[in-house]
Amino acid sequence: MLLRFGLNAEIVFNKDIAPEAANAVGAVVLEANELLFRRGVPAEVSENEVGRITDWSVSGNTLSIKIESGPYTRAHDAFLRFKKAVTPVMGKHRLGVRGIEVRNFSISMKGEIPKSAIPKLPMISDVTIEEDGIVLHLSLSLADLEKKLPDRLVKLVEEKIEAEAYGGKAEHWELLYESPKRPLHYDKNPSDELLKIGWAKHGASRGQWIFGPQAVELIRALETIAVEEIIKPLGYKEMIFPKLVPWDVWKQSGHAKGVYPEIYYVCAPKSRDPAYWEDVSDYYKVTGDVPVEMIRDRIEGPIGGMCYAQCPPFWPFVKGETLSNGCLPIKVFDRSGTSHRYESGGIHGIERVDEFHRIEVLWFGTIEQTVRTADLLHEAYTRIFDEVLELEWRCAKVTPWFMAQEGLVGVSDTSSVGTRDYEAILPYNGDWLEFQNVSVNGNKYPKGFNVKIQSGEECWSGCSGIGLERWTAAFLAQKGFDRSKWPESVLKLVGEPEDVFEFL
Amino acid sequence: MLLRFGLNAEIVFNKDIAPEAANAVGAVVLEANELLFRRGVPAEVSENEVGRITDWSVSGNTLSIKIESGPYTRAHDAFLRFKKAVTPVMGKHRLGVRGIEVRNFSISMKGEIPKSAIPKLPMISDVTIEEDGIVLHLSLSLADLEKKLPDRLVKLVEEKIEAEAYGGKAEHWELLYESPKRPLHYDKNPSDELLKIGWAKHGASRGQWIFGPQAVELIRALETIAVEEIIKPLGYKEMIFPKLVPWDVWKQSGHAKGVYPEIYYVCAPKSRDPAYWEDVSDYYKVTGDVPVEMIRDRIEGPIGGMCYAQCPPFWPFVKGETLSNGCLPIKVFDRSGTSHRYESGGIHGIERVDEFHRIEVLWFGTIEQTVRTADLLHEAYTRIFDEVLELEWRCAKVTPWFMAQEGLVGVSDTSSVGTRDYEAILPYNGDWLEFQNVSVNGNKYPKGFNVKIQSGEECWSGCSGIGLERWTAAFLAQKGFDRSKWPESVLKLVGEPEDVFEFL
Repeated sequence: MLLRFGLNAEIVFNKDIAPEAANAVGAVVLEANELLFRRGVPAEVSENEVGRITDWSVSGNTLSIKIESGPYTRAHDAFLRFKKAVTPVMGKHRLGVRGIEVRNFSISMKGEIPKSAIPKLPMISDVTIEEDGIVLHLSLSLADLEKKLPDRLVKLVEEKIEAEAYGGKAEHWELLYESPKRPLHYDKNPSDELLKIGWAKHGASRGQWIFGPQAVELIRALETIAVEEIIKPLGYKEMIFPKLVPWDVWKQSGHAKGVYPEIYYVCAPKSRDPAYWEDVSDYYKVTGDVPVEMIRDRIEGPIGGMCYAQCPPFWPFVKGETLSNGCLPIKVFDRSGTSHRYESGGIHGIERVDEFHRIEVLWFGTIEQTVRTADLLHEAYTRIFDEVLELEWRCAKVTPWFMAQEGLVGVSDTSSVGTRDYEAILPYNGDWLEFQNVSVNGNKYPKGFNVKIQSGEECWSGCSGIGLERWTAAFLAQKGFDRSKWPESVLKLVGEPEDVFEFL
Repeated sequence: MLLRFGLNAEIVFNKDIAPEAANAVGAVVLEANELLFRRGVPAEVSENEVGRITDWSVSGNTLSIKIESGPYTRAHDAFLRFKKAVTPVMGKHRLGVRGIEVRNFSISMKGEIPKSAIPKLPMISDVTIEEDGIVLHLSLSLADLEKKLPDRLVKLVEEKIEAEAYGGKAEHWELLYESPKRPLHYDKNPSDELLKIGWAKHGASRGQWIFGPQAVELIRALETIAVEEIIKPLGYKEMIFPKLVPWDVWKQSGHAKGVYPEIYYVCAPKSRDPAYWEDVSDYYKVTGDVPVEMIRDRIEGPIGGMCYAQCPPFWPFVKGETLSNGCLPIKVFDRSGTSHRYESGGIHGIERVDEFHRIEVLWFGTIEQTVRTADLLHEAYTRIFDEVLELEWRCAKVTPWFMAQEGLVGVSDTSSVGTRDYEAILPYNGDWLEFQNVSVNGNKYPKGFNVKIQSGEECWSGCSGIGLERWTAAFLAQKGFDRSKWPESVLKLVGEPEDVFEFL
């Protein structure tokens, strides 16, 4: 895509710019165009692709500057370089910068750009559609230039064009392993049966279950198999990861790029003074209705959301640290709370819920260690699903979850980065249920949280989410409720089912 | 407190009220004043304490009514009775009710009423302060009368007067048991040490910790002691209670009366269509800032909050049910996730946090069963704290937690209803830390969630929250980090501490 950037800005000084100071500006402009803006630009790049001050003038205390560029030393970058160069020169003339105003900033993009690729954002004040491309007119501050906002905007448009092109294509899915077929023991939807026999009931919120004692016995048995037969033997140590996730964590993990549609957002009270809340309490006591609008005025944020992906809130534990070679790969897991996703509507079984329990397995180290650790985990899962739980399942390489969550499809550029989905057949409807995954996330998290390795090698990480409701759904869908069909490994972990509740 | 209620209302019919219909109204008014409004009122109550239609008139299609009352058959109640009586009579004259407007509603309260006891609520349009009391002028709808809003308002003012009177008094606290003194092993703040040796770090959100492997080993050891030595031997079965709590649950549990200052509120997306969120994603991608205000416009609610008291979301499991005598007392527990409280500011140790882990123990049955179950639990705790964990602790009867959470002080009217707090001494500062509690909650939950017992006896419930961070804080504060000082019961559950992370 052919890119052109244009900028008009004014630098306002503390007093009028005398002629000799204006002459000094002229010299800085010349040097900038000839040397400063060429720095770091390959020699073969032609002049009109590089940032250039095409006009300047002084009037009273104000220096006006016009810069144009192609993709090299882009107008905003050129302006910042010029500002840095001109400031000390003007200082010699006792001129101090009082303010900087970016008057116009435009980005011209040539090429086929679908309308859907043009973002709707408050800093885009106008869009001109031309025969061979578009021009974006931006309202930007100096801080926006410093944050390289124009570059990010270009990248966003490029991403949108790519997403549009991918639009029709399916997500990547490539079979890696398929287990032997298993005899059919059960052909009903186990969630219906769970409800019927009272082992579980719907919770009061959307996509939420309350599990009774008999169901929990099975869920905990499966958890025990995961922990005692897979996770601990492979040397993973238990940690406790937080479950309220503030924006900072999602900014560093990348989730802030696109996770918004599925988040349960969390807001904090503006004050914990009971007097501040007295009329809300009073309103409820008098009307019996919770005054949601009154509450909205008294809460701040959202400050973040409820746990979504489980591993991001671990990373502040190692943020900014360098780890010794000897302690790698780090292998830890967490099973200390719930995850919450705003799933698409309707009431589903226990396999598709807004609130669920997951064991999150996490590791990191060198590239080789990270890939090897993922493979070992895959081998252990294979053994457990085939020999211990005796499931009918398969494993596929899919679009990495973090790409999917950022609205991307396809596969990663690096072949060993990616997600393996584990799917079990649900005999009652013939669908394959994704019941867990293993992902090698490349340098995504270590880079986002600035984690380094003593040796200087690149740090990679991986994670694997074991969904306990999904393991349970897969197990019950295939094995049913007749315990004589359950594998010995599970049977020995559950007692005789006992009806704790007897309803009339 | 002397109470007077006054009401003016208009009943609008579908056509003009003819003279013979007006005569019929007069007959209903007479009957209402003499018979209908006296119904259910003790004979000794004098006439002017009971609701009375003091004026009425017809004009066109409108019947205007004025009612005054003392505390018996209050004006709003009298109006509803009159409406019910007059409607069929008017029907005979082919007059149908088209609308009802409550023009004025006033409550006069005589007595000493501090200004702080007058609620600030939108339906209170004006307050007249008189020498011997106040008059509240209300804007109410028919639905408000049907919901008995005036009665609730009177009750609220009475509660506020009482709270004001209690204001200066301390919360109830009465020592029930004190353990033997223990030798001093450690005199530092264990949270400082946890940070220093890297066993735990602050999480990214307020009052939140990330626990490393060595800390989790101890936390899980204490959890195992609680579950294996106390909870399971006493016959409690594990369940999974939801962790996102919608308003409906807190309305029925009573928390909606006053828990607002401490809640982490949860909001759901208005849509999960990615297109609806595209500009939010784009804004973040371009600026690197999460656009909180844009998000606020796209979320609904709050729909409720994050788990606060842990047992309320259990109750929908038995809501509206009648339980057989044979299955009682029901004894269950949950340890499936985090609890969150917006605590007062500043950074505290692991004993005072916004996010924590708790085993919630819950039981219900007849009054006798519920009280007995609480006592058995107390005995088991006593044995474990004295003989197994060898703590220095005490137990006190305190203001019931649910009264405290509703802003009340003192003790329950019923002596066996109440909360026992368990406190451990923190040698480093001499404070007593409440590290768990046992509560008999009376009929609060069974009544709120409409749970009944086959025998027809009153159903009571109890709960006990075991705070794992607080157990750990109490244990480490008294025993320190030198394992030779740890009791055998804990030692055998933890391995040799292993440094998983080595930071340079």
